[in-house]
Amino acid sequence: MTVYSVAATTDATPDFSRPDGLITAVAQDAATGQVLMVAHMNREAWDETLATGRAIYYSRSRGRLWRKGEESGNVQHVRAVYVDCDGDAVLLVVEQVGGAACHEGYPSCFFRQVTPDGLKIVAQRVFDPGEVYGKTEGE
Amino acid sequence: MTVYSVAATTDATPDFSRPDGLITAVAQDAATGQVLMVAHMNREAWDETLATGRAIYYSRSRGRLWRKGEESGNVQHVRAVYVDCDGDAVLLVVEQVGGAACHEGYPSCFFRQVTPDGLKIVAQRVFDPGEVYGKTEGE
Repeated sequence: MTVYSVAATTDATPDFSRPDGLITAVAQDAATGQVLMVAHMNREAWDETLATGRAIYYSRSRGRLWRKGEESGNVQHVRAVYVDCDGDAVLLVVEQVGGAACHEGYPSCFFRQVTPDGLKIVAQRVFDPGEVYGKTEGE
Repeated sequence: MTVYSVAATTDATPDFSRPDGLITAVAQDAATGQVLMVAHMNREAWDETLATGRAIYYSRSRGRLWRKGEESGNVQHVRAVYVDCDGDAVLLVVEQVGGAACHEGYPSCFFRQVTPDGLKIVAQRVFDPGEVYGKTEGE
């Protein structure tokens, strides 16, 4: 599904002028409002996200486009996109296929809470990463 | 209010090993679930956030700690903190004093939506920035 056309959003382009050419992208679940993950986009990832209606990020560790769900099938269908006040961060409201954004099998990458006793896992796994990935997807 | 003590969270420290020493911080409204803003933290900002229970960021543009609300009074009381799977992003669930996180007077910095006609402002201003700031707060 194509939600946006690139041509129509020329004046809606974020600011890619930082030295690394990246912006920050936050994905939020359209149904629950949960913050699912934080990743990055270069200009190409942004353009492809708008053109395809799927969340495409730029993996800093792998140095290439990261088509979310390319390995797991857990793609993100983009329902709305927002650009922040200074243009270097975007918010994607998404439908998360498979119910889990995190390569560790949790709905959100933010599955660990800071507590007085250290980090505590506060979510339930939706899938077993070992069964889903040949190798780890993620940034 | 001190929500966390630094000493108790030694093993809950995010990964500050990137060249710039920063992690990404997302603030989400505790009451509404709205994503309010994206900013950054260095180790000092992280420690002070946990020690004080207020959101403290690192302003990349100003090269110093940015105690959110230091000028506007619109501080963020931190109610919960989550660390993401690879440790380079954190989620702060906050009570936003004044009802607006954005220095432009909107509840969220993501007040502009990408539409086929370009960026469209989709929020109402809570305050007039000209009346609140001597100069612009923000990253």
